[in-house]
Amino acid sequence: TMQHIFKEIFKAGIELIEDDHRKALLVSRKKKPENTVVQIDGEAIGREKKTIIAGPCAVESFEQVEAVAIALKSQGLSIMRGGAFKPRTSPYDFQGLGFEGLKILRAVADKHDMKVVTEIVNPAHVEEALNYIDVIQIGARNMQNFELLKEVGSQKKPVLLKRGLSATIQEFIYAAEYIMSQGNGNIILCERGIRTYEKATRNTLDITAVPILKKETHLPVLVDVTHSTGRKDLLLPAAKAALAIEADGIMVEVHPDPAVALSDAMQQLNIPEFEHFMNSLKSSRLLAAD
Amino acid sequence: TMQHIFKEIFKAGIELIEDDHRKALLVSRKKKPENTVVQIDGEAIGREKKTIIAGPCAVESFEQVEAVAIALKSQGLSIMRGGAFKPRTSPYDFQGLGFEGLKILRAVADKHDMKVVTEIVNPAHVEEALNYIDVIQIGARNMQNFELLKEVGSQKKPVLLKRGLSATIQEFIYAAEYIMSQGNGNIILCERGIRTYEKATRNTLDITAVPILKKETHLPVLVDVTHSTGRKDLLLPAAKAALAIEADGIMVEVHPDPAVALSDAMQQLNIPEFEHFMNSLKSSRLLAAD
Amino acid sequence: TMQHIFKEIFKAGIELIEDDHRKALLVSRKKKPENTVVQIDGEAIGREKKTIIAGPCAVESFEQVEAVAIALKSQGLSIMRGGAFKPRTSPYDFQGLGFEGLKILRAVADKHDMKVVTEIVNPAHVEEALNYIDVIQIGARNMQNFELLKEVGSQKKPVLLKRGLSATIQEFIYAAEYIMSQGNGNIILCERGIRTYEKATRNTLDITAVPILKKETHLPVLVDVTHSTGRKDLLLPAAKAALAIEADGIMVEVHPDPAVALSDAMQQLNIPEFEHFMNSLKSSRLLAAD
Amino acid sequence: TMQHIFKEIFKAGIELIEDDHRKALLVSRKKKPENTVVQIDGEAIGREKKTIIAGPCAVESFEQVEAVAIALKSQGLSIMRGGAFKPRTSPYDFQGLGFEGLKILRAVADKHDMKVVTEIVNPAHVEEALNYIDVIQIGARNMQNFELLKEVGSQKKPVLLKRGLSATIQEFIYAAEYIMSQGNGNIILCERGIRTYEKATRNTLDITAVPILKKETHLPVLVDVTHSTGRKDLLLPAAKAALAIEADGIMVEVHPDPAVALSDAMQQLNIPEFEHFMNSLKSSRLLAAD
Repeated sequence: TMQHIFKEIFKAGIELIEDDHRKALLVSRKKKPENTVVQIDGEAIGREKKTIIAGPCAVESFEQVEAVAIALKSQGLSIMRGGAFKPRTSPYDFQGLGFEGLKILRAVADKHDMKVVTEIVNPAHVEEALNYIDVIQIGARNMQNFELLKEVGSQKKPVLLKRGLSATIQEFIYAAEYIMSQGNGNIILCERGIRTYEKATRNTLDITAVPILKKETHLPVLVDVTHSTGRKDLLLPAAKAALAIEADGIMVEVHPDPAVALSDAMQQLNIPEFEHFMNSLKSSRLLAAD
Repeated sequence: TMQHIFKEIFKAGIELIEDDHRKALLVSRKKKPENTVVQIDGEAIGREKKTIIAGPCAVESFEQVEAVAIALKSQGLSIMRGGAFKPRTSPYDFQGLGFEGLKILRAVADKHDMKVVTEIVNPAHVEEALNYIDVIQIGARNMQNFELLKEVGSQKKPVLLKRGLSATIQEFIYAAEYIMSQGNGNIILCERGIRTYEKATRNTLDITAVPILKKETHLPVLVDVTHSTGRKDLLLPAAKAALAIEADGIMVEVHPDPAVALSDAMQQLNIPEFEHFMNSLKSSRLLAAD
Repeated sequence: TMQHIFKEIFKAGIELIEDDHRKALLVSRKKKPENTVVQIDGEAIGREKKTIIAGPCAVESFEQVEAVAIALKSQGLSIMRGGAFKPRTSPYDFQGLGFEGLKILRAVADKHDMKVVTEIVNPAHVEEALNYIDVIQIGARNMQNFELLKEVGSQKKPVLLKRGLSATIQEFIYAAEYIMSQGNGNIILCERGIRTYEKATRNTLDITAVPILKKETHLPVLVDVTHSTGRKDLLLPAAKAALAIEADGIMVEVHPDPAVALSDAMQQLNIPEFEHFMNSLKSSRLLAAD
Repeated sequence: TMQHIFKEIFKAGIELIEDDHRKALLVSRKKKPENTVVQIDGEAIGREKKTIIAGPCAVESFEQVEAVAIALKSQGLSIMRGGAFKPRTSPYDFQGLGFEGLKILRAVADKHDMKVVTEIVNPAHVEEALNYIDVIQIGARNMQNFELLKEVGSQKKPVLLKRGLSATIQEFIYAAEYIMSQGNGNIILCERGIRTYEKATRNTLDITAVPILKKETHLPVLVDVTHSTGRKDLLLPAAKAALAIEADGIMVEVHPDPAVALSDAMQQLNIPEFEHFMNSLKSSRLLAAD
């Protein structure tokens, strides 16, 4: 067993190096103890005031997006989400409007003085997309699309990075590091549920990922209550839990008429439901740092 | 495809029956719309006022249990947990003091006017255990030990039923039904994390199980923050999330000297940590219904 | 980091002890390098010749069991399974015939010179059950019902221990150790699929658990192809894989008329299907050690 | 409940459409009952003769690749794998030699009359890569990188598509459909283990995915024994199980000196181990269709 101890000392050496490695991560709180606040053209994510990002699953038309924008605005929100490039399980499902969708988002946002978050899926689209959007979203299916991560890391707009379908927290942190190592530290992390055996919800919201991510990194952390639960009746409870555990904000899907939505019909709030959602959060005292 | 439609009509018929079945569950909210409030000798679980149940993982001595009891009492708590029959992965780990442990729990509880929750693992022990304890806990490993469920269902003391290591919510509800179908409706459900691929935490706290269980059943629902996270630094965040999502209470492990504890040494709070935990919850405004 | 190295040396010390612990496990191959062969009244499990154990999910009547026994016998099999105490998710599902079922199994077995494997679920039933059965099965839901493990460990009949629904291999080995530490080393391990996110099969057959268990322990290892897949069309492929990876045998469910079976109707073979299954295995050259 | 039945009839209608959809999948066996045989410049995958694809995790140098090529050749193999674009969890891990690596692979392959399989990770690289490689591999992390799938679907070289880290079989089939819907039906599926709670292996080999994929699609199916197990001691058992369950072949990593490999050091076979692996498979009678 003397041999064993020497093996362990050797192993300890390796772990020390690994530890140094992790310490050296640019996204690590060991590297930068204070919180990163991501600025989106005047809006800050990561301050005491919580951020709600809402909008339709997919951009379908100017009218649809504008109806949502007006609803958001009237609730005091200024960041809108909406998908133009939709990564869908089947090639025969609606794939989004592409750049046409980005233009709609921009036009509505400009008209109503809002900011736009939208997913980009191809490294070759990033440069052109920057003309239209304020925050680049990396979706769950692309969390380890390292080519895309490097591409969005080498420009300056903020990136909203979603946790992969079954990514570990460690892998999630390394994905953020891919972006930051290219020079872009404007990263917002987003927990969106993980894949487990439980089928009562679409995914299992890993709520304690929020404090772990905030302890391990200096980045702001949102919770996507729509994709983590996949159930309208759980959006408000999940949002309350997320805010209580000190997430920096919430993402939620809103559509003027979910029944005819081209994707995610069952899990998007309609506008009155969204107003109820917002009012409930406001009265819960969990939202604001007044 | 006419044939297919008839098949579907047939299937619809089957589902209708299944649905009736589920509707017929005694634990279902369809059967009893109002909340069940479990009375533990004057203490109520399931009212607006939240319940905190705390205590050591394992009963080790009168002195150890009493030190915890005094700490609980001084925080205004009156229900203490503590294990005397310990289901341990290895047969060579500490298996608990058995009935000796129950006697210690009772003696401390009587001296300090408290109630006692403790796990029973053998149907043959239930009757004798009733002399010493106020709430019978069914542990995660025994959630589908149906013989034990039937036994605790055929007496009258409240039962705290923990979700199995990888039980679905549906299976959890049926396990409660095993108890209630024998005549005992004094059941408290307890979410305690599920087994997933993620290893940053001991288990993954399935936080949205709380609103689902409260919607599907009329039973009170607690969250065990110790076993779901397995990390001291996550106990307080997890408790806040649980209360915000409207769990009826929290279970947490406290030990006078965790470093020498005979089990769960790394995840039990010491007494000053417990006081900090309680004070933080109190000041969060999530605890009480004032 | 000098401090760190000392911490590691300390940790190495702990691991050494743990390692010794594991080495000391009675079921470990480090403790006993040669294979354990379990003798069931003249039938050996764990020899070069593979074992097929078949029979209905649940004992329903003498006629039903006898029809299966005759089919088994005509294929050269001598060990029959059949459930009399059925652990069912819902309390309203058929719970088995209990001791009446054991008597039917014994009567059929005696008449046709066969051996009987059946599940026992309550420690208090073990003693009486020994009058009727040749192998005690511990089901997946009871793999960590330690009271039951200790009870079957303190008698001498062979025990067939199924892996828990989401037990790790390590936990499975420790469950076997609970039995052997009480004095009974006649243990047969049975892989029966684990719970994962994939729903194309009832469980996910963890096929590499077989060589791991055979490397870590000296016990024979079977594969239950029925519960691991839950699909008739996968029984034969799964059995071939199991034999190729050197499992000591296979468990499979057979029922004279699956459509009217009181449980597991969809996944039991009828008798002609069973004959086809056996003939295919025989002609695959994977079964026998000729 | 009349209302319910009409709801069900409506639902049945929807399912009929879905069913038609699935029937219409180009990769489906319903669409094309006979097996697809993928031709790689004279080598066929999907015939009775099984295919073994082997090679280093990462291309490091001409000498390294050539040493492996010679070993493969002497075992009668003609398809070599080797990574030049390496998707690594950390941005600080070795990322592969890129196009330099492709050139090495091509040079070695031409010299020894072999075919080359290698992973491409960026849609923009596909066209250039076609100059050097015979089969384009889509790695697990990119199984739902739909932009990449469409790109490889719109050219003619065979594509080896690996199952995602926690993809369902359904999602895997749809990913193949993304490729085939663009016009390229030369697709080889590869099961490589799924992410589960069990940590005794790197992933859990989902062995019954093989017969399911072969039943649902007309495509050949390989098993990557290296990434599914992550353990050298399980490569041979896993390969035997895969062949017995009628996979069309095996992928395995081989490196002239694994200890100094720039990635996957612990799980690659060295050349004598590879020879032992091949000889054992050959003598198992599972490999060839003689």
